[in-house]
Amino acid sequence: MHRTIDWADGAVVIIDQVALPGEYRRSTLRTVDELVDAIRRLAVRGAPALGAAGALGVALAAFAGGDVRGEAERIAAARPTAVNLRWGVTRALGKLGDGPAAVVALGRAMLDEDERKNRAASGHAAEVVLRSCPRRPLRLLSHCNAGHLAAVAWGTALGVVWHLHERDLVESVLVDETRPLLQGSRLTAWELARAGVPYRVQPDSAAAFAMARGLVDCVLAGADRIAANGDVANKIGTYGLALAAAHHRIPFVVVAPESTVDDFATTGADIVIEERSAAELTELHGHPLAPANAPVFNPAFDVTPAGLITAVVTENGVRPAPSP
Amino acid sequence: MHRTIDWADGAVVIIDQVALPGEYRRSTLRTVDELVDAIRRLAVRGAPALGAAGALGVALAAFAGGDVRGEAERIAAARPTAVNLRWGVTRALGKLGDGPAAVVALGRAMLDEDERKNRAASGHAAEVVLRSCPRRPLRLLSHCNAGHLAAVAWGTALGVVWHLHERDLVESVLVDETRPLLQGSRLTAWELARAGVPYRVQPDSAAAFAMARGLVDCVLAGADRIAANGDVANKIGTYGLALAAAHHRIPFVVVAPESTVDDFATTGADIVIEERSAAELTELHGHPLAPANAPVFNPAFDVTPAGLITAVVTENGVRPAPSP
Repeated sequence: MHRTIDWADGAVVIIDQVALPGEYRRSTLRTVDELVDAIRRLAVRGAPALGAAGALGVALAAFAGGDVRGEAERIAAARPTAVNLRWGVTRALGKLGDGPAAVVALGRAMLDEDERKNRAASGHAAEVVLRSCPRRPLRLLSHCNAGHLAAVAWGTALGVVWHLHERDLVESVLVDETRPLLQGSRLTAWELARAGVPYRVQPDSAAAFAMARGLVDCVLAGADRIAANGDVANKIGTYGLALAAAHHRIPFVVVAPESTVDDFATTGADIVIEERSAAELTELHGHPLAPANAPVFNPAFDVTPAGLITAVVTENGVRPAPSP
Repeated sequence: MHRTIDWADGAVVIIDQVALPGEYRRSTLRTVDELVDAIRRLAVRGAPALGAAGALGVALAAFAGGDVRGEAERIAAARPTAVNLRWGVTRALGKLGDGPAAVVALGRAMLDEDERKNRAASGHAAEVVLRSCPRRPLRLLSHCNAGHLAAVAWGTALGVVWHLHERDLVESVLVDETRPLLQGSRLTAWELARAGVPYRVQPDSAAAFAMARGLVDCVLAGADRIAANGDVANKIGTYGLALAAAHHRIPFVVVAPESTVDDFATTGADIVIEERSAAELTELHGHPLAPANAPVFNPAFDVTPAGLITAVVTENGVRPAPSP
């Protein structure tokens, strides 16, 4: 598979995630406008991939000239919750004085770095899972998509599955479909099918029942922003999963690169939660799912308190538990 | 609004719930085959409505002649979890010796009885809500559809909203969309909009976060089968909601007619949980939501242990807590 996001011939090239699973298509983004639109539409998404998108977006702006810092701010603000986006933008701005080619070189280095760090983080997390869960082979539960498609390559939470599958230790993965945008059934299921890992898609609301029925050994989640105290903002539904996992004493492991940690957020209460449009809930491919103009509550993320999380694992290993 | 299910001119007439919210359409079912198909497709659904459907289905069979008891068994088995369906069939079979007209008369009486009992049950439950929740006006959370459309008229859990709204005590209702078949966003939202009750549709997975943000005073749920010990089988997702509500000390109130109690089920473990087709999760109106032939875990119901439920309320009032 191609990298989820890459740089080629002066443009950003992405795997268009809105087209999946129906079509595997790469799109070329030549302007900041096109990139911001792709980020907002979630054609490119996932915290690690957004870090790379931020850096490569600054490269686009640098080659275009004009108000590069203004354009950079526009990219960083395209989605408010994933801290990696602003992190990538900020890193790239640090190279701006050396010219556009230096920004691109940094962006390319970040692409390599992302894959390396995700492999390391998910490798550490696989060890945590093996230590925490006695059953073999393992029945894992995945929410949203924290795989290859959420990163440049490999993935974070789903990267754990790749490591364990290489060692033939995975029985199956329960895949939360992850409404409203179905990143689980559209993207995670697609990645698992491609990799030959047995899986089943379930409604998000079936996860607690699956746990009660003893079908889940471990829950794996990514992160969009990690507060200094260890609270984790991640895709809506993560918090409910963590509550159910804690009730059933099922390990709940979060995997993310260190760049997801936001030291300016003391606790989860400091994290801005993006609310997305009503249309994501009220229609699908033009078919109404609710009354016309139905009002919605559509937060893209929620916050899971550190106390519900077994381990937050990055490329540096298990993060120390926050002091109480 | 018409009754959800009725008897007219020798046939069963239903509000076709698959057509909503796009279209409000009544369908006439003249044969047991048509009725069984409507039950399986969830064109008629909801525990109380299925009780009436069971009785009126036996009336159809009685007029048609032939193996009425065999046809009755086929109706009762159309969906395995809702106990009311078999209860309605069994009651109607008791009148079979008096001829088809007597079966119809019983069915008609059950239609009236259902509305009366639901009004009573939801009235008792409204008092429980007012005693349990100090805040005025109330912010309620609804899962699936336990309204007019789940019963002959009025409704059970949503009936509580009607009682409270009549007294101007409802600020708003958070409506779980209720994947996979979206009875919340398609049906409950439609009923609330029609009644002028403020509401917002949310992804099922946002409910725990809404509770954490202090947006929910009380959770209201219906029931498809209640075990002797007070465990409740209801739409998938009810259990996760109950876990989250308990964590946040939010009252969780179940409303159902007494006919939903199954004394043969000692605990929830004795309740058969219907698993439904993969297509409900993998496509919508012909659009793929997952890879082709994706396997699924698609239980239609889950079981909420009695200990997580504040009160189970029927037409007779609050059911006594089970002995521990």
